[in-house]
Amino acid sequence: MAKELLPKKSDNISEWYTSVIRIADLADYGPVKGTMIIKPYGYAIWEAIQKQLDGYIKEKGVKNAYFPLFIPMSFLEKEKSHVEGFSPELAVVTVCGGEKLEEPLVVRPTSETVIYDAYGKWIQSWRDLPLMMNQWCNVVRWEKRTMPFMRTSEFLWQEGHTAHATHEEAIEMQNWAMDAYSKVYRDLLAIDGYTGLKSITERFAGAANSLTFESLMPSGKVVQSCTSHDLGQNFSKVFNIKFQDEQGVDSYAWQTSWGYTTRSIAALILAHGDDNGLCLPPNVAPIQIAIVSAKATKEVVDFCRLLNEELVGNGIRSEFDNRDDETFGYKLNKWEVRGAPIVIKVGPREVDNGKLTCRRRDTLSDVEINRGDATINIRELFDEIQSSMLNSSVNYKEENTRTASNYDEFKDIMKQHKGFIKVFWNDDPKIEKIIKDETTATTRCKIAEDTSGVDFYTGKPAKDIWLFAQSY
Amino acid sequence: MAKELLPKKSDNISEWYTSVIRIADLADYGPVKGTMIIKPYGYAIWEAIQKQLDGYIKEKGVKNAYFPLFIPMSFLEKEKSHVEGFSPELAVVTVCGGEKLEEPLVVRPTSETVIYDAYGKWIQSWRDLPLMMNQWCNVVRWEKRTMPFMRTSEFLWQEGHTAHATHEEAIEMQNWAMDAYSKVYRDLLAIDGYTGLKSITERFAGAANSLTFESLMPSGKVVQSCTSHDLGQNFSKVFNIKFQDEQGVDSYAWQTSWGYTTRSIAALILAHGDDNGLCLPPNVAPIQIAIVSAKATKEVVDFCRLLNEELVGNGIRSEFDNRDDETFGYKLNKWEVRGAPIVIKVGPREVDNGKLTCRRRDTLSDVEINRGDATINIRELFDEIQSSMLNSSVNYKEENTRTASNYDEFKDIMKQHKGFIKVFWNDDPKIEKIIKDETTATTRCKIAEDTSGVDFYTGKPAKDIWLFAQSY
Repeated sequence: MAKELLPKKSDNISEWYTSVIRIADLADYGPVKGTMIIKPYGYAIWEAIQKQLDGYIKEKGVKNAYFPLFIPMSFLEKEKSHVEGFSPELAVVTVCGGEKLEEPLVVRPTSETVIYDAYGKWIQSWRDLPLMMNQWCNVVRWEKRTMPFMRTSEFLWQEGHTAHATHEEAIEMQNWAMDAYSKVYRDLLAIDGYTGLKSITERFAGAANSLTFESLMPSGKVVQSCTSHDLGQNFSKVFNIKFQDEQGVDSYAWQTSWGYTTRSIAALILAHGDDNGLCLPPNVAPIQIAIVSAKATKEVVDFCRLLNEELVGNGIRSEFDNRDDETFGYKLNKWEVRGAPIVIKVGPREVDNGKLTCRRRDTLSDVEINRGDATINIRELFDEIQSSMLNSSVNYKEENTRTASNYDEFKDIMKQHKGFIKVFWNDDPKIEKIIKDETTATTRCKIAEDTSGVDFYTGKPAKDIWLFAQSY
Repeated sequence: MAKELLPKKSDNISEWYTSVIRIADLADYGPVKGTMIIKPYGYAIWEAIQKQLDGYIKEKGVKNAYFPLFIPMSFLEKEKSHVEGFSPELAVVTVCGGEKLEEPLVVRPTSETVIYDAYGKWIQSWRDLPLMMNQWCNVVRWEKRTMPFMRTSEFLWQEGHTAHATHEEAIEMQNWAMDAYSKVYRDLLAIDGYTGLKSITERFAGAANSLTFESLMPSGKVVQSCTSHDLGQNFSKVFNIKFQDEQGVDSYAWQTSWGYTTRSIAALILAHGDDNGLCLPPNVAPIQIAIVSAKATKEVVDFCRLLNEELVGNGIRSEFDNRDDETFGYKLNKWEVRGAPIVIKVGPREVDNGKLTCRRRDTLSDVEINRGDATINIRELFDEIQSSMLNSSVNYKEENTRTASNYDEFKDIMKQHKGFIKVFWNDDPKIEKIIKDETTATTRCKIAEDTSGVDFYTGKPAKDIWLFAQSY
């Protein structure tokens, strides 16, 4: 738990990252290479995200369901680009109940195929549409280069899958999902980012197009942890998802899928942490307030206990850290590493003068509030911290979004700063590959259609504005 | 959706069971043999159970976490009886990312081994105890004879895993879990049952002893869908879960594990359904109230809409079924099959006289209430339905618990009635096997220690009272 064991974030962000996960007790390594144990403190962050996002999903009328973990290999093979995209990453079950299987089973890397096989049976008429389901589950993608939360062989996510009568309706759904994700990012995680369309190279295997939310980390690299796909009729044609419209004409359904993963917790850790450890925004912090007493006299302990009960009773995630084997200093240190948004330090002085000393994790400064209206004051402080953290993220993003008008400028930015590079560009997989090989940067997303400029790479008239960056 | 397609429960309960699941839209078959798709109407029942049980778990101070799906085969082999119990049912991953694995990976059938391997690393001192974690997840047990919800190759559950300094504390935990499960069964599912200890044959592979909740179905067979195990030091010795006590002495931790599964939904369907379909208790019904209009005039539709808004606003899971392609009769029929506890039938008369006609699903009778205080009246009705359904279950259990003083009486009861058979008996795996082979009955649980009788099978002095029954 000791902060001293933590490498400086500013010195070596990857070492800092793996250390802070361990020291702040977010996760541990699993016994199988590339797997992870999400410990209670990390899982509580996921539960806070789930609660918010599940609320949005239910409000929209999307229904939760559960589809099988195992998918027949032949299902994956039905959609050509889908299987090409996923086959290098598959975990395959070949033996069940002591017998070799005739057809191997794939552990779901994503569930389009198994869900759309069912949709093909369930959908007959326009009255069955829209069909909108979601599941919260685990998926497996066998990754060579792993990193806790960021890229693990198994991860948790929600995947929404919908079928609509028209393409317009599907696009509306695709946009809705990305809006919900951005809200979670901004309002809960206090992380800003860019939303836009993926390039041909980067889009989901089997999608007509993919929306993404891309957020910049202090390493200068970018995290993508949620995407929303317009699947067009690609899967409905393969899985025969047909409906008879009001005029009696048969059509293939228009589909979307969208997913949000535990990877967002990697972004949360990286974006806000500092040399002292984690720094969690109040809206997602498992412990929003840690109460720590400077002296364990009866008066002080009673005061802390009462305060804690009052805060908890008012719906604040507060904890009175009453361990008797740790010093005051050790506890302050511990809650700093663990990123609790506010630590309330209580000693005899506070008991006497009716004031509370609140240590803000984000600014590392003390704020004095009245004990009398502690809940109101703390709620206000939460709002201030939350919006101040989001503002930092907005500023960081903006300061690190640079424009390149040609490839030399582009390469200079990659060498000197990394971050987002904004360019006029025409999507071309071959060029994207060259740029990636030469600079490590790939397209993150198309943020606007704009014909006023020239393609930074080819010098020809360009149609769109794109963001490039190195990604995790 | 048509009730006419439903076989009579009284004629053939297994055909009725698979039909009602399909017609009421609870679940569908997955593409892989023995797997199931839990559809939204079925999944919402699971969510209601989760919400309640997760609340109990958090109140108790048990923390949610997430452990990996894949377990190295060698982990399972560490605890001898554990691997013997589970090896016939394992699904095994042998290929990952296109390469054959050196050590095959087991898809978790339960997570003792992977969790206790971690506990062995995390626990050093008495200060680390109790360590109490829980996860909500999927598990895979490859079953030959499957039945939706009742026994599927993959199912959903929670599994709690704890480590304690003393055996007493572990037993307290084991009892706590079984109490929580009984509360879910009785208060939510309105199903009564017996709690007791499992026999040597029936207990969990690796446990010192297992507590169970056993409930009787109208088929005369019994469902077991949750168990709570005292693991003694069996796993802590194998996974080296040691702690130094306050005196500096090293001891192995005492452990428990406990799980509650989607199998309880099988019990819910079987226990309360009738020839007309599902019958759901209000506390767990996804739709507690269906509002159906006899005539779709503007007045009636507005009345229904307002009523629905009021009920939903008061936290009641109400739905105004406003489809225009189904008749009034068809809708009544549909909500009967789907088991909505109350259907409110609205026509011009109700709009005029300020009364509401509530059709109770459990009694199939109409109750008139005042529109004015609809919410209060409906809440009272819910309570009445819930307790009346539980009472039926209590009565059914008691009427079908019969006492046998010798093996002939036992066999007669099995032939004529099935149900629970209460006997004096001394636990003996060899005798249990003979009884099972000859009568299909197995021990369900030991309900009391009592030395006043003689063993029904051997005629020798007996130590305990046991319940036998045929199980699902």
